[in-house]
Amino acid sequence: MTAMTGLPSVERVVSLFVRFPGVGRKSAQRMIHHLLRQGPEEMDQLIRSLEALRRNVRACRVCFNLAEAELCRICADPKREPDVICVLEEAADLMAIERAGLYRGLYHVLGGRLSPLDGMGPEELHLDALERRLREGQVREVVVATNPTVEGEATAHYVAQLAQPLVAKVTRLAYGLPMGGELEYLDESTLYQALAGRRDY
Amino acid sequence: MTAMTGLPSVERVVSLFVRFPGVGRKSAQRMIHHLLRQGPEEMDQLIRSLEALRRNVRACRVCFNLAEAELCRICADPKREPDVICVLEEAADLMAIERAGLYRGLYHVLGGRLSPLDGMGPEELHLDALERRLREGQVREVVVATNPTVEGEATAHYVAQLAQPLVAKVTRLAYGLPMGGELEYLDESTLYQALAGRRDY
Repeated sequence: MTAMTGLPSVERVVSLFVRFPGVGRKSAQRMIHHLLRQGPEEMDQLIRSLEALRRNVRACRVCFNLAEAELCRICADPKREPDVICVLEEAADLMAIERAGLYRGLYHVLGGRLSPLDGMGPEELHLDALERRLREGQVREVVVATNPTVEGEATAHYVAQLAQPLVAKVTRLAYGLPMGGELEYLDESTLYQALAGRRDY
Repeated sequence: MTAMTGLPSVERVVSLFVRFPGVGRKSAQRMIHHLLRQGPEEMDQLIRSLEALRRNVRACRVCFNLAEAELCRICADPKREPDVICVLEEAADLMAIERAGLYRGLYHVLGGRLSPLDGMGPEELHLDALERRLREGQVREVVVATNPTVEGEATAHYVAQLAQPLVAKVTRLAYGLPMGGELEYLDESTLYQALAGRRDY
C-alpha cells in the first residue's frame, strides 16, 4: 500500500489492522477507506472507544475473564455455582459456553494453550492461580474445555493431572457429531470420537 | 455481547467495529479479544496510528485522492500524463487501477456514486471540481471508471454528459470476461457485454 498511496499514516494503520485475526491487507485497506470516508467524528469515536477499552477492561483477579472491576460479572454473581470450575483457553471460549446457556458454574481462563514451539509452557498459563483455587477445597468438579486440537488436548491433559488430586471429579466436554452436520461430510476423527463415546438410548 | 460480558467498554468497540465493511459481530469480538490479549502497548500503537491517520490524511486539493499534503502523490508527480483524467467513485478504486500498472494519467475521485434513494445527488459528488479541471482546457481524454453496477452506470452516464462538450475523447473501461473466469459460471449480463464488445483477432 505504501507503493500505492505513499502515505505513511495509512500504511501504519494497515500494518496494525492486518494483525487482527482474519484481516488481510485488502480488508485492512477497505476498513481504512471506510474510516476516512466516514470522516473525523467517526474516527474520534473509534479512538475514544479504544482508549476506554484500554483503560477499563482488565483480567478478573480470580478467573482471568474480561472484567471492568476486580471481579468479572460471573465471579461476582452469587447465583453461580461455586463448586464447579470450567477451564478454558481464552475469554472468547467462555462467551461461547455462556451462549450455550446450560453451564451455571464458574470459570478459569488459562490465557492460551501449551505450545512449546511457540514458547508457551505451563508458566505462561494461569495454572498456578488454578491450583490455588482448587487447594481452597470448595471445588467439587473441574470441567476441562480446551479446544479439540493437538495443543488443546495436551493442555487438557496437563490440567487434568493438576486437578485430579485436588477435586472429586474431573470431566471434559463430549466429542461427537456437531448438530446439523451430515455424517457423509464429517472427518474420520470426529466420527471415531462419536462412535467411541456412543451412549445408550 | 453485553449479555455475555456485561462490559460497556467492550460493547462500545464492538458496535463501532461492526460498521467496517465485512466485519460482523463475531469478527469484531475476535478482534477485541486479540487486542486485549496483546496488551496495552499494542492498543496504544493502534490508538496512536489512528490519531495520526485522522491528523495527517486528507483529500488531495485537485483530485480528492488520499493525501498527506495539499496534493496527492499522483498529482504531485511530474511524470504522470496531465492530459488524461480517470474518473472514479472512491480512492480505493484508484489503488486498484494503480495496481494494474498500465495507467499513467491523472485521476478524479468523485467520492461516491449517484444514488437518489441514499440522498446522493450530483451536488454530493466532486463534479463541480471535475468540470473546473476540464474547463482549464489541458485535458484530452476522460476515462470513466465507475463500478459496473446500476448506480455506477448512472454516474458514468452523468460524467460522460458533463465531459463530452469539454474534451476531445470520453472513454470507459471495457466490459467482458474476467481473466481466469470460466464461461460456464459467468452471469448473462457479463457474457452479453463480452459478446457485444467482441474484437477482431
